Amino acid sequence: MSLSLRPSAGAPADPALMTLAEAAMAIRAGVLSSREATEACLARIARLQPAINAFIAIEPEAALAAADAADAALAQGEVKGLLHGLPLAHKDMFYEEGLVSTCGSKILREKVATTNSTALARIKAAGTVRLGALHMVEFAYGPTGHNAHFGAARNPWNTAHVTGGSSSGSGAAVAARLTYGALGSDTGGSIRMPAHFCGVTGLKSTVGLVSRYGAMPLSFSLDTIGPLARTVEDCAILLGLMAGHDPLDPTTATAPVPDYLAAAEGRLKGLTIGIPDAFYVDDLDPEVARVLDETIATLKRGGARIVSVSLPDQMKLSGASQVVLNCEASASHKAWLLERPQDYGPQIRSRLENGFAIPAVTYLEALRWRGPALAEHLAAVAEVDAVLAPTAPMPAPTIAETDTDGGPGAEAMIQRITRFTRPVNYLGLPTVSLPCGFTSTGLPVGLQVIGRPFAEATLIRIGAAFQRETDFHEQMPEEA
Amino acid sequence: MSLSLRPSAGAPADPALMTLAEAAMAIRAGVLSSREATEACLARIARLQPAINAFIAIEPEAALAAADAADAALAQGEVKGLLHGLPLAHKDMFYEEGLVSTCGSKILREKVATTNSTALARIKAAGTVRLGALHMVEFAYGPTGHNAHFGAARNPWNTAHVTGGSSSGSGAAVAARLTYGALGSDTGGSIRMPAHFCGVTGLKSTVGLVSRYGAMPLSFSLDTIGPLARTVEDCAILLGLMAGHDPLDPTTATAPVPDYLAAAEGRLKGLTIGIPDAFYVDDLDPEVARVLDETIATLKRGGARIVSVSLPDQMKLSGASQVVLNCEASASHKAWLLERPQDYGPQIRSRLENGFAIPAVTYLEALRWRGPALAEHLAAVAEVDAVLAPTAPMPAPTIAETDTDGGPGAEAMIQRITRFTRPVNYLGLPTVSLPCGFTSTGLPVGLQVIGRPFAEATLIRIGAAFQRETDFHEQMPEEA
Repeated sequence: MSLSLRPSAGAPADPALMTLAEAAMAIRAGVLSSREATEACLARIARLQPAINAFIAIEPEAALAAADAADAALAQGEVKGLLHGLPLAHKDMFYEEGLVSTCGSKILREKVATTNSTALARIKAAGTVRLGALHMVEFAYGPTGHNAHFGAARNPWNTAHVTGGSSSGSGAAVAARLTYGALGSDTGGSIRMPAHFCGVTGLKSTVGLVSRYGAMPLSFSLDTIGPLARTVEDCAILLGLMAGHDPLDPTTATAPVPDYLAAAEGRLKGLTIGIPDAFYVDDLDPEVARVLDETIATLKRGGARIVSVSLPDQMKLSGASQVVLNCEASASHKAWLLERPQDYGPQIRSRLENGFAIPAVTYLEALRWRGPALAEHLAAVAEVDAVLAPTAPMPAPTIAETDTDGGPGAEAMIQRITRFTRPVNYLGLPTVSLPCGFTSTGLPVGLQVIGRPFAEATLIRIGAAFQRETDFHEQMPEEA
Repeated sequence: MSLSLRPSAGAPADPALMTLAEAAMAIRAGVLSSREATEACLARIARLQPAINAFIAIEPEAALAAADAADAALAQGEVKGLLHGLPLAHKDMFYEEGLVSTCGSKILREKVATTNSTALARIKAAGTVRLGALHMVEFAYGPTGHNAHFGAARNPWNTAHVTGGSSSGSGAAVAARLTYGALGSDTGGSIRMPAHFCGVTGLKSTVGLVSRYGAMPLSFSLDTIGPLARTVEDCAILLGLMAGHDPLDPTTATAPVPDYLAAAEGRLKGLTIGIPDAFYVDDLDPEVARVLDETIATLKRGGARIVSVSLPDQMKLSGASQVVLNCEASASHKAWLLERPQDYGPQIRSRLENGFAIPAVTYLEALRWRGPALAEHLAAVAEVDAVLAPTAPMPAPTIAETDTDGGPGAEAMIQRITRFTRPVNYLGLPTVSLPCGFTSTGLPVGLQVIGRPFAEATLIRIGAAFQRETDFHEQMPEEA
């Protein structure tokens, strides 16, 4: 990876307000110490955690000790990597040997991991400092950010609203500037939904780009890992560290990883972006529709060619996505569900139980259609470099209105929220959700840019160029 | 592959009675012409087909034309490969572009293939001549050799008895010396069962050794391709030609293929063979039990060390094998089963219908247990080079007593016959079934030697050494 980060002019008043790229550069340049950065994050966490519940575990002593060690090493001229001394926290499902990963559950609340997540280990190898562990939906199985065991995470822009999930803490903590970035996972929209609802950048990688070894599985056919951060450039840095073949995860591709930071330097000119002529533009909240129009105008001004595309039936993709997810999730959880059903929250328990009713033939049909469906999609987008679509039809709903527990309304609510994210999971495609505007009531609106398999570099090029034209990603919630 | 075949002393009275290795060497040495070999096979086919129904299609004109072309090429010094001019026929499920592969079905009876089976193409590239297409159970889904559309294949040793299936024609035609060898497929015992019942050698390869591209799928997790022939050496030649990575079948391993012919030169001394202390020795037909005892004695005499092994619960493996098979087969056949159920024979139709009732979670559990179950098996056999067991508890039953159609007795009968073959399919292991004796009524008895993953060379070493000590594989059925 190229190391040509733009140097920071100096440490701002609150170092926690720097981007990941700026803070990493500042620490390595000696302008900012790891302790200063870590203390800045910890101070904000202490102040904001009670309101937004973004963390499951906060570890100030360990973090400061690690920061001091990083500063001492740097003083000796030892640079561990690109993110030397940078404090970060991640969704609580990336195993670290000897530490607890709760996975947002009661069942694993005290389970000490015996493996190391490859994705996280690669980030840590760049020199990061652990701040603690971020909130997530129980076993990553839900799109809102509710959690029966740890309480709901709350949206920093309006704490009556959901963060989105399942990477709820990642969205909330990045938005509130409690961490410079965070790993998330996306099986049905779990990175993009909190990115959209919380106004941050979230990148769902292609299935097979980032190793899932040592990360909690939900649906092995659909699970992907990716970063949430303030900017596309920050996401490019984290993705570049994680991506690439892992012998411990035989589903990872062996192709070389592109230079994502170089891609972030690219321009919109020369790119063609498709706008779906149906489904993703139907029944939108008027504010989301407005943001979509404004974003199209911005991309055009930036030099992109905008064309209309007709995609295949997205509801069919969504249905297949759900069959695969439900079957694989229920199979993974069967033993616990039989032994200790009472230890699951009502919503996930009801969803897991539903998964037992699906026949194997239906599951196999859904799996087998994946190749033909992807071929059909690629034919439909042959003339464009990427597709732009809303991440969800609406901005963040309130916690109260989506608090359905396991009742009959739950599945309908989940369907409505994840309507635009699930089809992409079925096809395994990479997608970045970008902050693209705000509603009149001040809630962020994100849009997703959907790419071809393993074309993360193109999404990064589009997203970074868009963020040079806009400042939605720079805005942050006011503290209550 | 080494070409050090033992040269034949000359052509015997009926060239069809030579082994594959002998005939191939004789043709290449100019001692036997391809036309002579082909005419000899065609003459036997014409004589014996009415009694044993081993062929679905017989193509004398095309075969003789190809034989003449092979002879002409050889006269010009052109040797296409190891099997130049050798006439063969295969189970009718290996696609050849432009030709019909019926797969033993009414549904595909007139379907012209548009792809080429990699396994068959590799054999053909060695110079073989096509005699026609061999009988098989409809869509390879049955262990006896019955076929509602083409009539049952009949056992050459006693035409009132079944051949075993699903590679029914491969077993019968090799036994009756109508072809020098034949490809078969084995998903639940379909190579080993006809090898056992018909008194020939059949080798089921490790899942991932031989490309399945262009071969009819039954259960993609379990399907394997392998040869049936008179001797282990013949099987080694055919396997050596087919084995190895195929870019068209991403499930094939990339490891280099061992020299199987060199392995056939090995001795029993230095090898340890395990005899299961349960399951495979329980409730055996007394004649099968006697053959097992005699075989153990022969192996001991030959220098092998014989020890007892305690294998994990084989019924659990068998159950998992069946779940995977039933789900995958029913998924593959769903469209036809809905559109033209009347075009299936009653037994396969009933089995396919049963597959629709299995939940996805049960299927996924069966798939996921495969790794742990294999690890448990490998631990149990850590001290032995291979395991010896009966291929089935009984010799070939009669056609009449196993003619259950789709009735309630069908599944019980299938279970009883495939009791000893299914567990191996679940684990994906290689296995060779060797002719090891005869019943008092003159029916052959085969035993299987089960190896570690990709340890076909060890099985070939054991089998070839055993065949140097015995002559069961040289005996052939009398013509009625």
